[in-house]
Amino acid sequence: MRDVSIIGIGQIPVGEHWEKSLRHVAYQAIAAAMHDANIERADALYVGNMLSGEISGQAHLGALLADFAGLRGIEAVKVEAACASGSAAFRHAYIGVASGLQNITIAVGVEKMTDDIGSKLTAGLASAADADYEVIHGVSFVALNALIMQRYMYEYKVKHEDFAGFAVTAHANGAHNPNAMFQQPISQASFMKASMIAHPITLLDASPMGDGAAAVILCPTEQAREFSDNAIQVKGSAVATDSLSIHDRRDPLWLHAGELSAQRAYHQANVTPADIDFFELHDAFTIMAALSLEACGFAERGKGTWLARDGEIGLQGKIPISTRGGLKARGHPVGATGLYQIVEAVQQLRGQADANQIANARLGMTQNIGGSGATIITHIFEGK
Amino acid sequence: MRDVSIIGIGQIPVGEHWEKSLRHVAYQAIAAAMHDANIERADALYVGNMLSGEISGQAHLGALLADFAGLRGIEAVKVEAACASGSAAFRHAYIGVASGLQNITIAVGVEKMTDDIGSKLTAGLASAADADYEVIHGVSFVALNALIMQRYMYEYKVKHEDFAGFAVTAHANGAHNPNAMFQQPISQASFMKASMIAHPITLLDASPMGDGAAAVILCPTEQAREFSDNAIQVKGSAVATDSLSIHDRRDPLWLHAGELSAQRAYHQANVTPADIDFFELHDAFTIMAALSLEACGFAERGKGTWLARDGEIGLQGKIPISTRGGLKARGHPVGATGLYQIVEAVQQLRGQADANQIANARLGMTQNIGGSGATIITHIFEGK
Repeated sequence: MRDVSIIGIGQIPVGEHWEKSLRHVAYQAIAAAMHDANIERADALYVGNMLSGEISGQAHLGALLADFAGLRGIEAVKVEAACASGSAAFRHAYIGVASGLQNITIAVGVEKMTDDIGSKLTAGLASAADADYEVIHGVSFVALNALIMQRYMYEYKVKHEDFAGFAVTAHANGAHNPNAMFQQPISQASFMKASMIAHPITLLDASPMGDGAAAVILCPTEQAREFSDNAIQVKGSAVATDSLSIHDRRDPLWLHAGELSAQRAYHQANVTPADIDFFELHDAFTIMAALSLEACGFAERGKGTWLARDGEIGLQGKIPISTRGGLKARGHPVGATGLYQIVEAVQQLRGQADANQIANARLGMTQNIGGSGATIITHIFEGK
Repeated sequence: MRDVSIIGIGQIPVGEHWEKSLRHVAYQAIAAAMHDANIERADALYVGNMLSGEISGQAHLGALLADFAGLRGIEAVKVEAACASGSAAFRHAYIGVASGLQNITIAVGVEKMTDDIGSKLTAGLASAADADYEVIHGVSFVALNALIMQRYMYEYKVKHEDFAGFAVTAHANGAHNPNAMFQQPISQASFMKASMIAHPITLLDASPMGDGAAAVILCPTEQAREFSDNAIQVKGSAVATDSLSIHDRRDPLWLHAGELSAQRAYHQANVTPADIDFFELHDAFTIMAALSLEACGFAERGKGTWLARDGEIGLQGKIPISTRGGLKARGHPVGATGLYQIVEAVQQLRGQADANQIANARLGMTQNIGGSGATIITHIFEGK
């Protein structure tokens, strides 16, 4: 296995891109990344996407996007792991280069959610959960997360306001990210007044729906200098799974797959949580931010919200999270999210995060969660 | 890159499995393959599937099937390349082992089509084509293939009856395959009388819709003997792409991605078409059998049907195809088809093809086509 580095990144602003088709938003991210890496060819394209079949009537995105990006003929495929599809695509682009099979690979995540804001989208998102044992009861994906949050608050004696820090921090950081869907800060007070979606999840606990695409270019580390002065190395890459159904887990308040994949990534990178300078986590809902911090060893069980309360997740905190807005403010175009996280980690490690820059960031981690925790993918990156 | 071998195969009969859910059909194939390989654990599961989101309201099959197969925690992901999804899953299971990243991997292809025989299924299958430039005009996937066939017949002065041999051969072979959806031979006369679907494609030009699942287990060749006395080595593995839209190809009568992927696989395996003992091709429609034979170098351009006419595709012919019934008679559960082809190739190379056995088969090839030719995946396998 060869060392692998990222030599190019591209993204489009997350938002409602009514005027663009799925292929256009994906193309813009791919083209930006290829331009950034100064390449015109690649050996393979890996596409992360969840819902194009349901929402846009379009499967077969590998070949479609390879062709539309001017790369007709190359190996291309779509990979899907619900909301973790973006990181899954990245992982296969990584394996392609690490194995020696391919020299330059592209990972792109894309989701065009606004082609159907309605029943198809709600049903599509619910397909990340267990259709036969969860969704059949009429529960939506938000409701499933609400059940977890409710139980978490009960078990650990945590109040809803204790989660406010996650949303406030995400919006504060998103305010300086031109690619964020929401660039307005919010206050603790507005968090407390937000309208209810599925008790106890309110509008400001939840990430928004939007269109988006983000892409990265990978190559062997030993060749990275030919393309880029600021290549970022992949130090850890791991996928772990759990049951789709929450009721089937040993502990519904513990992201077992998050722990497993983080441990595997730490082991590969030979680091501990204390070494990580910032953490792009999967704050699709504030409860998921807390659970992810706990599963990865940044907080003790049941104490994830303490980090938010104590200001430790801010840009100057012990473990900055959602540094460019996270899913909450940058947005959560499902299959693209994992690649937005990685693009943002690269920005931090290159020193290109502008007002959101973490001082002396050297090691960054991303964690992308599929469903309510059934697929969790963790990556660790190192800058110079 | 390590050499990789197949040490276990499993499949269920293709058919209308109303009584089973998607996870059950997939599980049966995985369990049979694990039993065949005499293993109880694996490092990763790769799932090939196209339509579970649209038909069954279920995405996230990687984690779902890993858990249901008793493998909770392992790396798992779904890969999709329309009708070539099965071979795409196999390819990633192959790369996992070849790279040294994983030691034992499972590839499973599964499709549960009968959960919706109707508009969702027709629309789902059409999503393999270009939604914005083909399907928007109301054309179905069968109709797109009919356009190609019509043009082929016109350009090369081929009659509809010239395609009969493909269907007759497939059904003759399927008659001896207990896992085939159709186990009845058909005659040239019945082919000529078959009812029209989309001119010139009749019912007997087209593969049927059905449920199915097939799986294989892979491990490094150097360890294969620990598990199996009859391991089959992967000698070539290649993916190539083309435009989704037929009108956008340089030549709509040439499977450019078929030629590319076959050439890449021949090169890797260091063989020529003359070395191949049998060829499991993608006879979703008889026209695709002709085009695949031409693209892979078994027939000259425009002369694919000659092989059928001259009896060269039968079990004793120069290049036997669809030896266990092919897509036409064994059936075409879309995302599972690529793995049925591979399971059947392994049966031939192990000498387990019963009445369909090719004498002294040593090199077998499979080719799986996504859409009308936009993703084509070729594999070459070697027995002892």
